[in-house]
Amino acid sequence: MKLASLKHGRDGRLHIVSSDLSRACPADDIAPTLQAALDDWAALQPKLQDRYDALQAGTAKSITFDPADCDAPLPRGYHWADGSAYVTHVELVRKARGAELPQSFWEDPLIYMGASDAFIGARDPIPVQDEAWGIDFEAEVVVVTDDVPAGVTPAQAAGHIKLIGLVNDVSLRNLIPAELGKQFGFYQSKPWTSFTPTLATPDELGDAWDGHRLHLPLYAIHNGTKVGSPNAGVDMVFDFPTLIAHCAKSRSLVAGTVIGSGTVSNVGSKDGSCCLAEVRCIETIEQGEAKTPFMSFGDRIEIYMRDADGNSIFGDIDQQVEAYTPPT
Amino acid sequence: MKLASLKHGRDGRLHIVSSDLSRACPADDIAPTLQAALDDWAALQPKLQDRYDALQAGTAKSITFDPADCDAPLPRGYHWADGSAYVTHVELVRKARGAELPQSFWEDPLIYMGASDAFIGARDPIPVQDEAWGIDFEAEVVVVTDDVPAGVTPAQAAGHIKLIGLVNDVSLRNLIPAELGKQFGFYQSKPWTSFTPTLATPDELGDAWDGHRLHLPLYAIHNGTKVGSPNAGVDMVFDFPTLIAHCAKSRSLVAGTVIGSGTVSNVGSKDGSCCLAEVRCIETIEQGEAKTPFMSFGDRIEIYMRDADGNSIFGDIDQQVEAYTPPT
Repeated sequence: MKLASLKHGRDGRLHIVSSDLSRACPADDIAPTLQAALDDWAALQPKLQDRYDALQAGTAKSITFDPADCDAPLPRGYHWADGSAYVTHVELVRKARGAELPQSFWEDPLIYMGASDAFIGARDPIPVQDEAWGIDFEAEVVVVTDDVPAGVTPAQAAGHIKLIGLVNDVSLRNLIPAELGKQFGFYQSKPWTSFTPTLATPDELGDAWDGHRLHLPLYAIHNGTKVGSPNAGVDMVFDFPTLIAHCAKSRSLVAGTVIGSGTVSNVGSKDGSCCLAEVRCIETIEQGEAKTPFMSFGDRIEIYMRDADGNSIFGDIDQQVEAYTPPT
Repeated sequence: MKLASLKHGRDGRLHIVSSDLSRACPADDIAPTLQAALDDWAALQPKLQDRYDALQAGTAKSITFDPADCDAPLPRGYHWADGSAYVTHVELVRKARGAELPQSFWEDPLIYMGASDAFIGARDPIPVQDEAWGIDFEAEVVVVTDDVPAGVTPAQAAGHIKLIGLVNDVSLRNLIPAELGKQFGFYQSKPWTSFTPTLATPDELGDAWDGHRLHLPLYAIHNGTKVGSPNAGVDMVFDFPTLIAHCAKSRSLVAGTVIGSGTVSNVGSKDGSCCLAEVRCIETIEQGEAKTPFMSFGDRIEIYMRDADGNSIFGDIDQQVEAYTPPT
């Protein structure tokens, strides 16, 4: 089953989307919003599935699905925790500035609390005030949970993964060093997070989802040129159940919690990178300096995964950076 | 006007509370939840105010107000950003471990993203699995905003402060060093945030609220003994409009954003401290070692402010730490 929230007020209107992303039908009679569906998932999932089956069979009344109509699947979320599960990415970033990676980073997940009130749609512009902030994308895999009790084990956490999708974790690179230096984590440097038009239930992904990781290349295309397509199932040191258990160590997680993988990255980067920062780190290590600039106003970023037949699984993130002017 | 959310489902049921905290009347016909009220504050605030005026005049049908019935005013929030605006607290913590405070900490606010899905009521137990995590409270002032556009100035931000209250930012001290060492901010070490039973509109606070700071002593009482009552209007280096503008530098803030002052602390600590960690830092500096233990299961923490007549303004946070056992 694939789910989307079409733009409508603050929380969107829940729709079921066909597997081929061609058709959609409203599901707001079952649950008005995706949050409402997740709040009562065990009871509502079968009803949503019935609607999906009818849509797939061509017996449900439907409309043409247009990703441009989509808000983020959760236009406002209560919890967005983003990991750095591909430790090779963190190692590259450190190496580029001549720093060692602490051994503990291979054993204890890095996680930061993201801005769950700043989720945007797949085709929305990315408003940024100043190009000098160092605008970058980060292509990631995310999972969405139902209610997770505090203290769950990774094995227990696996059963709480209800939906899967992709995000662009927009990053302002030149604001990061000062924020990390203060040790309180990212804040101004992680403004927006864009989502694919749909999220999919695990069964929709077939063999590509093993309950722990999503084994497919993740494409990041900048201004029409491929930056990378690393495989998200490779070199993910901390799998999703482990990340969820880490997040739930000292408190419960509310239904609708979004857990991110961090920038997908493979050791050696033979298939490229999922953010410009990593490209620049590799340039710094290999050539002595970063040559690839960060994004400019008007730049386009596409992020997607394809199935074995070349079809987009979640729909594509396809958005442009836009100059933002504050109110006077 | 004072507002509370009585326990009801995931988001509570909005109630108006009398100024003396004795009576309450439902307001869910105006807005079902406090979030809904904040989503449309300009239109709904006058209606809520009319109801409040009737309650104060004794002409509204009302019930006895019992803080034990209260959930957090926003039982689930979309955004919780917590500052460290009383820089003297940060300086003490650093001094206790022999570290200098960077000069920039006096000029650039420290802010971390908190767990907005883990808000609990004033009388709720604080569930913690392990006393060895170093259980502590932090008494703070918070403000709640309506929608704040990106890039607002502090002067513009001031007008977005709609509600004011107090919180207990529960902290697990022994989990903090490892998390801060990773530079990604607090996560497991900041599990729950408890709120006063009510939040008040700025006009309710009279001269104590100057649009920037709340000029009253904040009491923190641990197991019946006063730990501190520093004045929240003193030594707050970054006022609330400045904190909001800092948070909104690179993106908008959604209605219902909660912005915290950080642990209230006065230079010299003559009126004590608002957390045990600060008490322990002072002991370390003055006596060479910390003597005050952190909290144990069963410990009680009360946090409140009193008006000139000695009456509780927001109602009291009054809760106990409870041993938590994870699911098997």
